[in-house]
Amino acid sequence: MEDLLTRSVLAGNRLALARLLTQVENDSPAGRAALEELFPHTGKAHLIGVTGAPGTGKSSLVNQLALHYRKTDQKKVAVIAVDPSSPFTGGAVLGDRVRMRDLSGNDGVFIRSMASRGSVGGLAQMTAAFTQIFDAAGYEIVIVETVGAGQSEVDVARLAQTTIVVEAPGLGDDIQAIKAGILEIADVLVINKADRPGVEHTERALRSMLALAHPAPRVYRHHGQAMTVITPKVDQGLWIPPIVKTVATDGTGIAEVADSIARHAGHLRVSGEWASRDRARLGSELEAALEQALTRRFFQNIQKEKYNEMVEKVVRRALSPHEAVKVLLNGNSKQETV
Amino acid sequence: MEDLLTRSVLAGNRLALARLLTQVENDSPAGRAALEELFPHTGKAHLIGVTGAPGTGKSSLVNQLALHYRKTDQKKVAVIAVDPSSPFTGGAVLGDRVRMRDLSGNDGVFIRSMASRGSVGGLAQMTAAFTQIFDAAGYEIVIVETVGAGQSEVDVARLAQTTIVVEAPGLGDDIQAIKAGILEIADVLVINKADRPGVEHTERALRSMLALAHPAPRVYRHHGQAMTVITPKVDQGLWIPPIVKTVATDGTGIAEVADSIARHAGHLRVSGEWASRDRARLGSELEAALEQALTRRFFQNIQKEKYNEMVEKVVRRALSPHEAVKVLLNGNSKQETV
Repeated sequence: MEDLLTRSVLAGNRLALARLLTQVENDSPAGRAALEELFPHTGKAHLIGVTGAPGTGKSSLVNQLALHYRKTDQKKVAVIAVDPSSPFTGGAVLGDRVRMRDLSGNDGVFIRSMASRGSVGGLAQMTAAFTQIFDAAGYEIVIVETVGAGQSEVDVARLAQTTIVVEAPGLGDDIQAIKAGILEIADVLVINKADRPGVEHTERALRSMLALAHPAPRVYRHHGQAMTVITPKVDQGLWIPPIVKTVATDGTGIAEVADSIARHAGHLRVSGEWASRDRARLGSELEAALEQALTRRFFQNIQKEKYNEMVEKVVRRALSPHEAVKVLLNGNSKQETV
Repeated sequence: MEDLLTRSVLAGNRLALARLLTQVENDSPAGRAALEELFPHTGKAHLIGVTGAPGTGKSSLVNQLALHYRKTDQKKVAVIAVDPSSPFTGGAVLGDRVRMRDLSGNDGVFIRSMASRGSVGGLAQMTAAFTQIFDAAGYEIVIVETVGAGQSEVDVARLAQTTIVVEAPGLGDDIQAIKAGILEIADVLVINKADRPGVEHTERALRSMLALAHPAPRVYRHHGQAMTVITPKVDQGLWIPPIVKTVATDGTGIAEVADSIARHAGHLRVSGEWASRDRARLGSELEAALEQALTRRFFQNIQKEKYNEMVEKVVRRALSPHEAVKVLLNGNSKQETV
């Protein structure tokens, strides 16, 4: 029997939804239980990752895109604004209202900011949980926006069905170097602030990099035999990322971005990649949950003193971390079974 | 008995060092073995993390800083240029020579670029391994430079004794938002490109943010009872991050940056934080190694078919990832022990 909170979320109650997100963010038992109950209702939403360097105007683009989906297609849209720039605060830097002024009061749109809590994997896991909640609650479009360039992009690519990489003219050479790497995770490329000088240069650079880029296989986390590799289905037609020019502040090009996203979704379904991305994402999630459970069980069964003793030996450089692990798991650092 | 490769690295052979780094990057058995043998020789280097948004001129700053240490103090300097912007290539975007032209041919300086391989934790782990190799090989200063803003900064803060955050004038509002979060991991703040307009504004903004900033406890990864929290030793004198203005391209302010780093090292030793950061870093490493070993052991002991069956059930939404973990660990999804 489903919990009241779960039922309220499934029934579309926004207040219940907001409460559940907070509970999950705080990792409360009720939040975890609701997440379990909602899981069977997931798998319908189109997850769109929006990423790019600071200064490209991602937030404005996401704002306009959400408005577009709402006005044109009457779709329910959720926006998760991930802000990994504040790893230690535990709260988002920008308030939701500041971030998305245009969308406030729009009933079919739900916006939530989120800050990383400083633990590796924590951000990706919480984003995945939020995405599942919105998915189960009937949000057809879930946009995950990340600030910055780095590991967070990889996480977005892992999570999203469609990844949008936002560029802007005139952001300097450092950005240029980043583009080369980021191109590999882009399904749609957007040049925002396209009314600025240098847009032709940016577009030329992107086109030549696109021409060079080979569709690298997407390698996901793996342990032992459980490696999950997604290789692009070359024989079923390759997706070449389109380049769309936008001026998010006045809405120019937003319809074209939405159109590219829709065409990409079609490509994913036809090529079978929609299912394989879903499988890879859930496979990663299963492995992460497994890793956590194994570690939790280990710490439940070991004496704190014995563990701390090992840490001290490592700090004194008497044992390496790997030797310490051998002792902890086998009681003998010379055994070769680990 | 130590291996020949290990002995050559300890003896200061640069070719052996380069070969070992590649072996560790490729996760070869020989590389892993050498890393084990080198571990007792670690713990002497000063690890300096340099981070900041794209466009701030981090690479030039690192270049000049390495030159300074080499020329002024005759110290052996290693630079690890982490480039997380290319998660899927498996190779660094920028070649070492391009990156650090001034330093090529300088015998006491070793530069190595590194690209993330797309696996969560992989980048941090490899950076830690590289750092240990340089440390054992007698490099007194190890500088880890990260591109971008996000999880990589957290990893730098976790790894380094001193974290330098580089800013530059006129990088836009998006950057401004990032500063607020990044301030919390900064031990030294550098305003590079200080000959550009807007430097006073940037400095004012940083100073007012510094005045507001509270020294938040540094929370490290934790599982079960093994939580490791470092709280700043307020009673032993608080470190207020100095702000240093530089023009890295002509060397202005570099000596001041080096001086701030030296004073910070002194503060860490006096306050006892040097030891507690070392302990926290090794504690995290031990936990990561433990997690991996537990997961590897699990996959060695489970039939591939049984595991794939579970993945399929999750993909069909018949089981949630957590329920699947319960079944995998206990053989019963209704048990409450996980």
